[in-house]
Parts: sequence; structure tokens; C-alpha cells
Amino acid sequence: MQDQNQQAYDRGTSIFSPDGRLYQVEYAREAIKRGTASVGVRTADGVVLAADRQVRSPLVEEQSIEKLHRVDDHIAVASAGHVADARQLVDFAREQAQVNKLRYDEPIGVESLAKEVTDYIQRYTQSGGVRPFGVALAIGGVDPDGTPKLFETDPSGTPYEWKATAIGGNREALQGFLEDEYRAEMDLDSGISLALETIAQGEDDEAVDPAAAEVTVVDTETHRVRSLDPEEIASHLDELDGGEADE
Amino acid sequence: MQDQNQQAYDRGTSIFSPDGRLYQVEYAREAIKRGTASVGVRTADGVVLAADRQVRSPLVEEQSIEKLHRVDDHIAVASAGHVADARQLVDFAREQAQVNKLRYDEPIGVESLAKEVTDYIQRYTQSGGVRPFGVALAIGGVDPDGTPKLFETDPSGTPYEWKATAIGGNREALQGFLEDEYRAEMDLDSGISLALETIAQGEDDEAVDPAAAEVTVVDTETHRVRSLDPEEIASHLDELDGGEADE
Amino acid sequence: MQDQNQQAYDRGTSIFSPDGRLYQVEYAREAIKRGTASVGVRTADGVVLAADRQVRSPLVEEQSIEKLHRVDDHIAVASAGHVADARQLVDFAREQAQVNKLRYDEPIGVESLAKEVTDYIQRYTQSGGVRPFGVALAIGGVDPDGTPKLFETDPSGTPYEWKATAIGGNREALQGFLEDEYRAEMDLDSGISLALETIAQGEDDEAVDPAAAEVTVVDTETHRVRSLDPEEIASHLDELDGGEADE
Amino acid sequence: MQDQNQQAYDRGTSIFSPDGRLYQVEYAREAIKRGTASVGVRTADGVVLAADRQVRSPLVEEQSIEKLHRVDDHIAVASAGHVADARQLVDFAREQAQVNKLRYDEPIGVESLAKEVTDYIQRYTQSGGVRPFGVALAIGGVDPDGTPKLFETDPSGTPYEWKATAIGGNREALQGFLEDEYRAEMDLDSGISLALETIAQGEDDEAVDPAAAEVTVVDTETHRVRSLDPEEIASHLDELDGGEADE
Amino acid sequence: MQDQNQQAYDRGTSIFSPDGRLYQVEYAREAIKRGTASVGVRTADGVVLAADRQVRSPLVEEQSIEKLHRVDDHIAVASAGHVADARQLVDFAREQAQVNKLRYDEPIGVESLAKEVTDYIQRYTQSGGVRPFGVALAIGGVDPDGTPKLFETDPSGTPYEWKATAIGGNREALQGFLEDEYRAEMDLDSGISLALETIAQGEDDEAVDPAAAEVTVVDTETHRVRSLDPEEIASHLDELDGGEADE
Amino acid sequence: MQDQNQQAYDRGTSIFSPDGRLYQVEYAREAIKRGTASVGVRTADGVVLAADRQVRSPLVEEQSIEKLHRVDDHIAVASAGHVADARQLVDFAREQAQVNKLRYDEPIGVESLAKEVTDYIQRYTQSGGVRPFGVALAIGGVDPDGTPKLFETDPSGTPYEWKATAIGGNREALQGFLEDEYRAEMDLDSGISLALETIAQGEDDEAVDPAAAEVTVVDTETHRVRSLDPEEIASHLDELDGGEADE
Amino acid sequence: MQDQNQQAYDRGTSIFSPDGRLYQVEYAREAIKRGTASVGVRTADGVVLAADRQVRSPLVEEQSIEKLHRVDDHIAVASAGHVADARQLVDFAREQAQVNKLRYDEPIGVESLAKEVTDYIQRYTQSGGVRPFGVALAIGGVDPDGTPKLFETDPSGTPYEWKATAIGGNREALQGFLEDEYRAEMDLDSGISLALETIAQGEDDEAVDPAAAEVTVVDTETHRVRSLDPEEIASHLDELDGGEADE
Repeated sequence: MQDQNQQAYDRGTSIFSPDGRLYQVEYAREAIKRGTASVGVRTADGVVLAADRQVRSPLVEEQSIEKLHRVDDHIAVASAGHVADARQLVDFAREQAQVNKLRYDEPIGVESLAKEVTDYIQRYTQSGGVRPFGVALAIGGVDPDGTPKLFETDPSGTPYEWKATAIGGNREALQGFLEDEYRAEMDLDSGISLALETIAQGEDDEAVDPAAAEVTVVDTETHRVRSLDPEEIASHLDELDGGEADE
Repeated sequence: MQDQNQQAYDRGTSIFSPDGRLYQVEYAREAIKRGTASVGVRTADGVVLAADRQVRSPLVEEQSIEKLHRVDDHIAVASAGHVADARQLVDFAREQAQVNKLRYDEPIGVESLAKEVTDYIQRYTQSGGVRPFGVALAIGGVDPDGTPKLFETDPSGTPYEWKATAIGGNREALQGFLEDEYRAEMDLDSGISLALETIAQGEDDEAVDPAAAEVTVVDTETHRVRSLDPEEIASHLDELDGGEADE
Repeated sequence: MQDQNQQAYDRGTSIFSPDGRLYQVEYAREAIKRGTASVGVRTADGVVLAADRQVRSPLVEEQSIEKLHRVDDHIAVASAGHVADARQLVDFAREQAQVNKLRYDEPIGVESLAKEVTDYIQRYTQSGGVRPFGVALAIGGVDPDGTPKLFETDPSGTPYEWKATAIGGNREALQGFLEDEYRAEMDLDSGISLALETIAQGEDDEAVDPAAAEVTVVDTETHRVRSLDPEEIASHLDELDGGEADE
Repeated sequence: MQDQNQQAYDRGTSIFSPDGRLYQVEYAREAIKRGTASVGVRTADGVVLAADRQVRSPLVEEQSIEKLHRVDDHIAVASAGHVADARQLVDFAREQAQVNKLRYDEPIGVESLAKEVTDYIQRYTQSGGVRPFGVALAIGGVDPDGTPKLFETDPSGTPYEWKATAIGGNREALQGFLEDEYRAEMDLDSGISLALETIAQGEDDEAVDPAAAEVTVVDTETHRVRSLDPEEIASHLDELDGGEADE
Repeated sequence: MQDQNQQAYDRGTSIFSPDGRLYQVEYAREAIKRGTASVGVRTADGVVLAADRQVRSPLVEEQSIEKLHRVDDHIAVASAGHVADARQLVDFAREQAQVNKLRYDEPIGVESLAKEVTDYIQRYTQSGGVRPFGVALAIGGVDPDGTPKLFETDPSGTPYEWKATAIGGNREALQGFLEDEYRAEMDLDSGISLALETIAQGEDDEAVDPAAAEVTVVDTETHRVRSLDPEEIASHLDELDGGEADE
Repeated sequence: MQDQNQQAYDRGTSIFSPDGRLYQVEYAREAIKRGTASVGVRTADGVVLAADRQVRSPLVEEQSIEKLHRVDDHIAVASAGHVADARQLVDFAREQAQVNKLRYDEPIGVESLAKEVTDYIQRYTQSGGVRPFGVALAIGGVDPDGTPKLFETDPSGTPYEWKATAIGGNREALQGFLEDEYRAEMDLDSGISLALETIAQGEDDEAVDPAAAEVTVVDTETHRVRSLDPEEIASHLDELDGGEADE
Repeated sequence: MQDQNQQAYDRGTSIFSPDGRLYQVEYAREAIKRGTASVGVRTADGVVLAADRQVRSPLVEEQSIEKLHRVDDHIAVASAGHVADARQLVDFAREQAQVNKLRYDEPIGVESLAKEVTDYIQRYTQSGGVRPFGVALAIGGVDPDGTPKLFETDPSGTPYEWKATAIGGNREALQGFLEDEYRAEMDLDSGISLALETIAQGEDDEAVDPAAAEVTVVDTETHRVRSLDPEEIASHLDELDGGEADE
């Protein structure tokens, strides 16, 4: 895929290519595409994060395949890509949330946290001797003032705010689906359904196994991260099938 | 584009080419050209910074595409190029502004700040193991004595003061437009219009979407950074259309 | 096996390949396959870890071939791959267990310990100048609340929880055997038998030498790591032969 | 220009070529030649530093193109070459001047300052991982005992004292002109004229734009750095035209 | 011997080959084979370490060719391979023994010491910029509880416990001899004879020069390291000759 | 001049060639040959150091071309080769002289100083990441006990004591001249003449320009470094012409 | 001399060749062969160190060519190979001797000192970024208990004790001569003669210039290092000639 010229500039983070690209950052984006997708949807009364766990064996405990992570009472993270890298960033995010609470005696804002994380990521793109993080995060939560927020980080360390986003494998297709289906006025329940439906687009048979799906919400009422149990997820999936039949 | 000879000298910041060039710094300039343009205009009663956010998806929150950054009450920054690198420099600039306030009990001058930033940038061009910053900044503000000032930084770490400047993609064309249209006696309102008009030159259809445009001003009366809301921007754009029709 | 292109990206941990892979981590997985297998089985009343010591000479003291390691009163580890690397991780795990006890005055949870270890492993995959750990661990134990747990670590630093797992040489075949034979309702005794039977699948003659086999259990009653003596192992193996004869 | 052999030794400061040359230092000299010239002239009653600002655009504030820098009350510096590198050395010189004042309670001598700067420059020519400074400085001032002094630094870190010198592009031609025209008995006014005339030799039309020229003097009476305003410069240039007409 | 592919992965300790091997560790094992053999034999009433000094010249003081080293009152070490590397490890072992005594007020166990040493060795196999230790050690001694113990270290940092072992040149042949001749019920005297006999297998004429042989024992009665004098060694050798004649 | 084989070993100070040479040290000696020569002559009543300044331009202040340096009241240094490197060593020598005075309350001996300097030089020949010093020094002075001494340093860091020596360009020819003309019983005046005559051998016309020559003496009476003024030098040169005419 | 394969492994101290060799250490041994020989002879009543100074020019002070070094009152060192490296090791040895005196209030033993030095040397053979010491030392002295001792160090860091040894150029031939001529019962005077005779074997005309020879002895009576003056050396040489004539 890459010619001689590219190879001359793609083996270090401390080097630009002649056309101003950072190849190692671009390769890290490829690492993200190798993972399964995660989805984030922001609604008027909360944020939804959803993921499909890639179950490798019936003997693996599905809940140990971590794609959704609790960062603080009011903020959660969905990851896609290199799992071990995601854990490093989630640990960093947790520390920042604690530090903020100790220093200012109030919960960290979602945007502040997203920017602390992206600034940390950026440092792995400018110095030699390290590689960029091979992971994307969707950071969702409710600000102390009650506003739901959804941010995304990429391996370059750029933060973007989204109404709804998909990260990981099949991103383009899933983003397209979200663009078609997303409505600003959605409530949390519709958000959960949209997130699960989007995840389903990435499956071969466009169906999600309720046991393998993972959904976490932060609503504007409680300001608390809550993971849906398989029954809740199954009930949403049932509804979807019904709804789709109606179309 | 580059021959064997160039390749021998372009993979590190700690190396001159035989003709005395620093290729990595030149490649970082290419990274800047890959971004959309930002514009700065200095007028008698304040400085204008404007940018067109490159909206990738209708689901992205436009205001999260940061091209204009508040650094202190009286200084703002427009960036072009690598977004994550810009954030690092803006963070550095904010710290310098705070340090100055604590140490001297008065706001930092725009030139002082610009030079702190460029000295910091230079250090990434002389040592091995790091790459230069792939970003240009237009630093605008009002000095404590009420003088409006506009500076630009580049990846080599050289500070220049401008009456008006464009950074990022299409720079040459936009600079040319500014050279033609800039008048020293402009007031802040005309400056805003000129900035938006310049931005428009970089668009395919020479039109700016008011929702995507971002304008920040620092005026000599309040000495305060103020971001224009979409209505204000739209009204300026309407005026421009009218004005252009008059020509 | 690998072409020119792969060689360009496989000699350092601080570099992604163009398709987003970390070759050094993949090569470390090959180092694990070079070792003999270890097996972990989680049952309702405890966790079983088993291994077959690769005896190189009749003069070697078999018990000095360490494949099972006691980490704390309630947690043990089975390793596969590079022995000396395993010892480093076990030492790290022991320290973490001690630190937890001192800090919180209670035994460390199995999952917490597994994640401390995988976070440590990850750091050897992102910086230059080191190589990844060439070892996989099965970490088994009983949580303070009495829940038996079984985790696995790999050279990328990803933690997974398993009902039963095999690491090291012949992993695919042994995992397949476990998937066929594992029952959730098994008691500890059946777990020991399954673990030994699985180990036997990796032997040329599908038989395990009781003197060479090593079995450690942590049961939910005592919360204590206990190593079976050769007689106990032999009696389990006898039973297996009888059982197999029955089939 | 350079053959294979040269390339083997020219990519690091920590390496001699077989014939005892330091190529990176020589390439840094090429970087200096890429800049416009600066001139220093020592007269009986003071030192003159002059430079022609390379104006890239009518929108650039000419005075922000820094080629002359005030280092202390009694010492100024003219630079040629890499602007950002010059700023680093000027910052270093300013610190040294302050340190000297604090330590000995008297202004630093011009020679002492020049040698502090060249010793600092030398360190960037003997260790790996950095590049030499791509800049030459003309350091002019009046010693505490009233003696005017003019020193020059180059990328190797060698200090030389001059009666008059030109650094930067066209150096050879300008030095030749100075050798022809310099008189030891010149007064400060004649020195200013000679400096401007020398600068003019480097221009295509052998004329200097008074607005673009920059002249700084340190006289033996006040011991103070003083920048000439454009009117003073223009009047000197007028005189020159008259004088040349006389020839 | 090695092809292009191997060369791509064999020049650093911080790199795995595609099949999961650490070539530098394997090459360090070759360094051990270049040395003469040392032998360790564990008997019921003590441990025997023996070595044949490779006398290069009649002018060398044989006793200065250190192959056996006293580490503590109750532990000695036999080395094979790179002599200077052996000295580093022996120094490290002595320090560990002292530290243990100070910290716990009792002699260090043989296994503990062996594992401290191998953990230290492992660190030279995982980081760049160093090479592995080119030496194997046989560590023999009597534990505080009176148990005789014999461990071996290799360049990978793996500890193994042996009943009897040979390290260095001709290892395979000597190990084979030990496997044939070793009896678990041997007393210390028989152990000394077996060790000398094994050493003799490595000689061209299968005879050991008593003056060149070096034997150290640690018995379970005194717990003390004791070096045999040449007369004792000679008497053992005489016995052997007689015994062999008998066969 | 150098073939492939040499190139394999000549690009670092931390590497021997297969025949035991340090090429970078040899290349540093070439850097010395590129400079003009300096001469040292030891006589019964003092030491003479002389040099011919290579005047590049009539506008350079000759006395700023430093080839002779005062290190302490009683010791001076003549250098040849890389000027900026010489300054580093002279600075180091001055510090050592000061330290000695503070520590022992007496002037440092010439030999002690020479050895401090050479030990410092050696460190730049054994570690990677730096290059050797491209300079030779002739260190002359009078010991506290009144003995005149003359030492020489080279880039390897070897100190030698000389009766008379020449360093820099044309060294072989000048050394030969000194060997022919030196007499042990010379007085200081004859020493000055011999030094100047030797310098003249290196000139194209075998004549020395008194203004360009630099002579420093340390005599056994005053123990003080003294630089000859141009008149003294001229008078010696006149004598020489006369003397030569006599021959 | 060396093929492609060797070159792949010979440019760093932190790398073994596939057959377990350390090429940089072997090349350092070549550096030793480039020097003139030094000789050490141990006799019943003291140790003799002798060397022939390689006089490069009649103007060099012979006694400044340091091949024999006083380390402490009772220990001296003869060196062969890279002179500046020898000085570093001698400085290190002197420090160790002082440290021992301060710590234990008694002179350091010869063997202890030799091992401190070789352990120091070893560290330059296991880490990247440095080269081994290109020097061999013969360390001779009298232990506090009155025993004369002679040790040798090589670039690998291995210490050996000798009755008599030659280091440097022609080592093999000189060692052979020593093996033929050495008698254990020699007195100090015969030792001096043997040392000088051995040195003479290395000369083209098998004759030693008394002025160029250097002899140092440490006798068991005084425990003091003493350098022979040229007259003593000459008288020994005369004796030798007479003795040889007798043969």
C-alpha cells in the first residue's frame, strides 16, 4: 500500500512526512479500525454509550471484555481499538477526575476531562521513543450544570464534541446510519434504541446478541453512570425488531 | 517531490541540510497548509480573529471545532494546522499569561506572549527526538496601554507582527486579498467584515456559512475577548453580500 | 514467513505497522507458544491451576520448574512462556498484593490484581528500548467476598476473565477441549480432573506423569492457596483413566 | 555538491570527517548566508549596528522583523540567519548580562559577553542530539571604561573582534566594501553612513529603503543603546546620495 | 550459520524474533560453551562444586583462575563462561547475602539467593543498551535448616534446582555422565569423587591435574564453605584411578 | 582515502576498529593540522609560547585571534586547531587552577594541570554522543619550586612533556627544525628567538609579521605570565634576520 | 580480515556475536598490541615492573612517557596500550587505594585492588554507548602481610595472578622468554635483570637504552614503591651484557 517514500517517514512519531503528515498517527487509526465499534448518543435527558463485546470463546466471561468504563460518578467512556491502551487512558481519566474533585470540590466537566485526555494523547505524537495510543474514546457524561455531553478522542489528540458518534470498525457506515436516524429531540430511551440499532448495523446479520451487548447511560436527573442489565437491553432489542417490522 | 539528497537530511530536527535548511520545519509548514485558513485583522479600535470551522459531519458540534482560543481576558489566538499541537501551545500561552499576572500583577503584553510562545516553539527545532509543532497561530489582543496588536507564529519559532494576516490553507491567495483590501483606518466593524470576506475567498463558492464561521474580537475599549454569536456573524455576512453587489 | 514490508515495522515496540499492528507483541505471543501449556478452571467452590513441568533431565528437581506461583494467601498464578519474564510479573504481583493489604487492610481482589499486572505489561508495549513480556499468566483466586475468579494476561496487556482457559503451547486444541468438557456446575474435584485431563491432551501419549504434574487450588471455604501433593494428583489421574475407560 | 563520502560524516555534530571538518557547523554557515546582511562598524566615539529588514509583505509590521536586539543598556546585537535561533542567543546574552550585574555590581564587558555566548554556541557543536545555531551575531557596545567594542560569533563558537564587519548574505562582497571604505578615525556619524552604504551594496538597486533600514548605536558618551528613527536614517541616506554624487 | 532473517532480530536484547526467540540470550549461551566446565553435585550431607582451571601458562598462578567463589559462610558458586561477567554476579550475590543477614538476622536461603541472582540477570534481557550476562552459575550451599541445595542460573535468568549438574563446555556429555553415575544416597566423599570424575570426562585424556582442579564443599554439619587443598584432591583422584582400574 | 572497512568504524568515539584504532581521535588530529602552528620552547630561565595569528581580514582585531591564553599567574597555553574547542579546554584549565589554589592554598603545578586537562579530554574519546576535542594545547609555566615546564595535550588525552614542541599545521617540519636548533642551555631570550624562527618556517616566505606574531613567556624569576608587545617581538625578529644573515 | 558476518556484531559492547564473542573487547586487545611491551616479575623479596619508553623525539622528556605509575606507597602499575585509558584506570586505582585506607585504616591488598579495577573495566563491556578500555595493566606490590603479588588486567575485566608476565606488543614472544628464564627462587636483583632482559627481546637489536628504560620495584622489606635511576638500570644492563657474553 505504501511506497518507498512513505516508508522513509512512517517509523517514528517525531517526524513529519514531506507533505506534513504524521504516519504513525495514521497507522494508530488503523489499529482502531481493527476493533469492534462502540457508539455514543447524546439525548436531551442523558447520554448513551453502547458496545458489542467481541466474544472470542464461550468460556470467556463476557463482562470482562471491557469496552465501556466508568470514569467518575457522572462520566463514562466507550473505547474502540487497542484494549490495553484504552485502559491506560481510562486510568489517566480517572486520576484527572479525582484530582479535579480534590482541587475544586466539584465534579469535573465532561469537556475538561476530554481535553485533559487529548492533551495527554498528543504528547505521545510529538516525541521519539513512544508510539501513539491505538485507541479512540467516546467520553459521555452530564456536566455539573445538568448538560449532557459527548466527546470523542483520536490518536492525534484532537477532541471533538458530537451529538452522536461511532468509533472503531465500520465507522463510516455506522456514522452514516447515525446521521440518517439521529433526532435532536430524542429522549434517553430512543437514544438507547438508536445506539443498539447502530451497533446492529456492524453485525453480519444486523442483529445484536443481548448478552453480548453492553449499554451504559448517564441521565440528567441522577447524574449517575448506570449500566443496563441484559434484560433491559433485550427489551430494547425486542422493541427494535417490532419497530423495524412496522417500517 | 524530494530527491535522494533531501531525504538524507529531512528526518530529524537536529540536522541542517548542506544548503542550510531545516527540512522538518519546512514539512511542518506543509502540515499547516493542510488545515483550513484562519484570519487576523488589526484595526484602530481592536483586533479581529476569524476562522471557518471545517465541519466533517452534521453530528459534530460545530463549536467544538476549536480554531479560536481565549488565552487571557485581553488576548485570543486563532490557529491553523494540527489541532492537537495548537492546544499544547494555547495551554502554554495560558500558563505564561497567568505567570505574568502573578509575577508583575498586570496583564501580559501581546508581544511578550508571542515571544514566549515562539521561544518555546524554537526548542522543538533544535533537539533530536521531537518534531516541530505543525501549527501556526495568530495571536491578537490589546496591550495594557490600549494598543491593539496582532502577531503570528510559525513552526520555526519566528514571531512577526502583522496589520492583517491569513494562516493555513490557501494562505498566499488570502494574504493577497488582504493586501488589496486592508485599510489602516478601518474600524472594528469593517475589520470583522474584511476578516469574513477573506475567509470566504478560501471557500469553493466564496460564501461563508454563518453557523460554521467563528469570530472573536478584542476591542480597545473593554480590553476583553468577545466571541460573536451566529446572528452577529450572519448580519455581517449579509452586509458583505450587499456591499459586494454594490461594487 | 514475513516479507520485507513486515520487517520494516517489527523491530520495536514503539511503532505501529501501516495496518495498525504491533508486531513485537505478536512475536511475544509466539514465545508463549514455545512453552508447555498451563490450565486454569474455575468451579463453584474454587479455582484450579494446573501445569505439566517440562522435565529436561532426571537430575533436575521437578519442583524447581516453576509454572505455578503463589502470589498471596488467596491468589495463585500459572504461567506459560518465558520463565524469567514470568518471575518478574509474579514478583510485581506479589508487591501489589502486599501494597493493597497495607493500604486497605484487606486482601486484594483477583480482578484488581489482574489489572495492575496488565497495566504494567502494557507499558512494555508503548515505549522504545524494551521488549514486551514473553509470557501469559492465568491468575486464579478467591475474592474477599468468596467469589472464585480466573483471569488471563497476554503480552499486549489485555485482561480477560475466563471460566476455564489454557495458555502456552497447543492452546487452540486445549481451549477446544475445555469448551467441550467444561460445565458451570462443576465442583472443585471435577475441576481438578478436567484441568489434568486438559493437560493430558497436550502430551504426545495423552497421559500425564503424576510426578511432573503440578496442581494448585484456591477454594471458597478456606480462601487459601493449596498445592496438591503427587499422591492426590495420582489419585485424580487414576480416576480419569477409569473414567475414560468407561467412555 | 557533496559526494557519498561527505554524506557519511555530515549528519551529526558529534562526528569529525576524515579530514577533520565538522560538516554540520559548515551547513549552519549556509543557513546564515540565506538571511539578509547585517553590518557592524566601530568608530572612535561608539559602535554602529545596521540591518535591512527583509519585508515580505506590506501587511507585516516592519519593526517586528528583529535583526537588531538590545541586550543591556550598553550592548546591542545584530543578527543574520535563522531568526528563532538568534532570539535564543539574545535571551541567553541578556541573562548573562543580568547575572554579571547582580554578581559584580557593574555592567558586563563586551568581550566577556561575546565569549559567554560563543562558549554556549560551542556546546551545540560537540554533543549528539542537537544541531548548531544557524545564526551569526555582531555584538557591539561600550565597555565600562568607555572603549567601544565590536565582536562577531559564528556557528562554531569562535569569537573574533572586528573594526567593522558584515554578516549574512553577500558577506564577502560587503566585507570587501568595508575593507575599502573603513577609516579608523571615523566618527559615529560617518560610521552610521558607512554602515548604511554597506547595507546598500547588498540591495539589487544599491539603495536602502529608509523605512526598512534599522540602525542602532552605542556611543562612548552616554554608554547607552539608541535606535535611530526613520527620519535620522533617511537624512543619513540623503547625505550618502549626495556624497556618492560627488564622487 | 544464521541467515538474513535471523540477523534482522539478533542484535539487541529488546527484540523478539518472529518465532518468539531472544537471539542475544542464545548467543550468550554460546559464550558459556566457550569456557571450561564446572560441576555441582548435591549429596545427603553436603554440596560439592568442582572446576578445572584452564591454565594458560606455567607463569599464571593457578589459584587466581577463579571458577569457584565463596558467596557467604554457607554458599559457594561455580561459574562457566565469561569470567568478568561471573565476577559481577558473584559480587551481586555477596551483597544480597549481606543484605539478607542485616535485614532478617539469619543466613540467606540458597533458593532465595539463586532467585535474586536470576531476577537480576533477567533485567539484562529485556532492555536495550545492555547485553545479557555471558555466564552460567552453579550455586550450592546448605540452608539454615540444614538442607543441601544446588541451583543453576543461565543467561535468560531462569533458576533450576539440580541434584547434580555440569555447566560450560561439553555440558551435554558431562550431564550425560552425571545422569548415569549420580546416586541420591551418595555421601559427600562420593560426591567429591563423582564431581572430579565428571570434570575428567571433559579433558582430552580424561585425567585431571590435581594442581589445576579446584573443589569446594559445603557440608550439612558445619554449614561452612571449605576449599579442598591439592593433597585432598590428589587423594580423591588416586582413588578414582584405582576405582576405574577396578572396573 | 579511507575504504569501506574504515568507514564501518569511524563514526563514533565509542568504537574500536578491528585493528584497535580510534578513528574519530585520528580525525580530530586532522582538525589540528588545519590550524596554523604554535610553538613552545622551554629554557633554563623560563618557558616561551609563540603563535602566528592567521589574519583573515585587515578589519579583524589581531589580538582577538586567540592562540595564546593565560590560565593562571604562572601558566599559559598555546593552542592549535579548532578555536572554540580550545576555549572550552582553557576554561576548564582555569577552573582547575582556581580549585587547586582554593583547596591547597598554592599555585597548581604545570604537570598536574596538564594531567587534569588530558583526563578531561580522554572522557570525550570513550563515550558515544560526543566528539573528541579538535585541538592540541602546549601548556607552559613555572612550577611553585621554580622549575620551568612545557607539556602538550592531544585529542586522545595523552600528556607528554617536551623541551620544545610545535603543534598544528606543518608540525613535522617545525618539529624537525626545533630538533636541529634547540639547545638545553638556551636562555629565555634565545628561546624567544628560536620560537619565532620556528614559526617563520611555517610561513610561505619564512618571515613573520611582528604585528601578527604573539609571544608569551613565563620566567623563573617572576613566575608570571607576560605577553611581549609588538616592539619586543619586532626587535627579536630583527635580530633573527641579522643572525641568519651571519650564517 | 573480518567478513560481513563479523561486521554485523562488532560495533558495540552490548552485543554478542552468534558464536558468543565480544568483538569490541577483542579489538581493544589489538589496541594493546599497538603499544610497546611492559614486564612484571615477582620474586621472593619483591615485585619488579619494567618498561621501555617509546621515545618519539629527542625533544620529548622521556620521564613524561608514563608506562609505570605509582598507585599507593606499596603498589605500582605498568601499562601497555592506549596511554590516556591507562591514566583513567590508574586514577581509579589511586582512589580505591585511598578509600580503602580511610575505611579500614590499612593499605589495600594487591588482589583487592586488581579486582576493583577489573570490575570497573567489565562495566565498559556490557553497556552500549561506551567502548572498552584499550589497555592492559600489570599491577604489582607487597601485601600488608609482606607477600609480593603481581596481577594483570585485560579489556574484558578478567584478573589473573602471575609469577611473571609481559603485556603489550610482542607479548607472545616475551611471555615465552619469561617462561624459559623465570625461576621461582629469584631475588629482587635477578628479577630486575630478567625484566630488563625480557624488554630487550622486544627491541630490534635486542638491546635496551638505559635512558629509555624505566624500572620500578616494591620490595618486601620496605613495602615501598621505588623507581630505579638510570645509573642503576645501566649497571643492570651492563651485567646482562656480561652475563650474556658468558653464555
